[in-house]
Amino acid sequence: MERLTDQQIAEQLTAAAGWVRTDEKWIEKKYRFKSFMDGIAFVNKVAELSEQHDHHPLIAIDYKLVTLRLSSWNAGGLTDLDLRMAVECNELYEQVR
Amino acid sequence: MERLTDQQIAEQLTAAAGWVRTDEKWIEKKYRFKSFMDGIAFVNKVAELSEQHDHHPLIAIDYKLVTLRLSSWNAGGLTDLDLRMAVECNELYEQVR
Repeated sequence: MERLTDQQIAEQLTAAAGWVRTDEKWIEKKYRFKSFMDGIAFVNKVAELSEQHDHHPLIAIDYKLVTLRLSSWNAGGLTDLDLRMAVECNELYEQVR
Repeated sequence: MERLTDQQIAEQLTAAAGWVRTDEKWIEKKYRFKSFMDGIAFVNKVAELSEQHDHHPLIAIDYKLVTLRLSSWNAGGLTDLDLRMAVECNELYEQVR
């Protein structure tokens, strides 16, 4: 998969509410939950999605706050897959929160 | 719960294989898994344990590597509960890996 240009990333990020580009290679979002176990339920859904795409975000669970970070190692940057997964993680969040 | 002394922490860490004190207030261990989903299964077990103790480690999932960090905010440092949970997380790891 091809690395996206800065302009492509900026455009596609407009469809991924709350996701921000933290540096050249990474996008990130922090998701808040009402309870710790709600956050864990979300992480399980994200894990299933990751396996389906064979693409695994970095996941940090800090009590009721779950941070996801996406990048494509093989492309050395951000690809369509990262941006698509960002949108899909937002959809999973709507199911859980 | 009372904060442990440096000596108490050092003594109790000998029973928690692989856990290291990273600074004054934190102990940490990195657990490796054969697959991403094995790591997720471990995180679910750790989550249940955390709820039982009402004490939640910071959890980072980096593909097949899961890092746990423990500290007691209310005590401003490390307590018996942190060291007990470190041992219990090791036991959970044995069940999953």
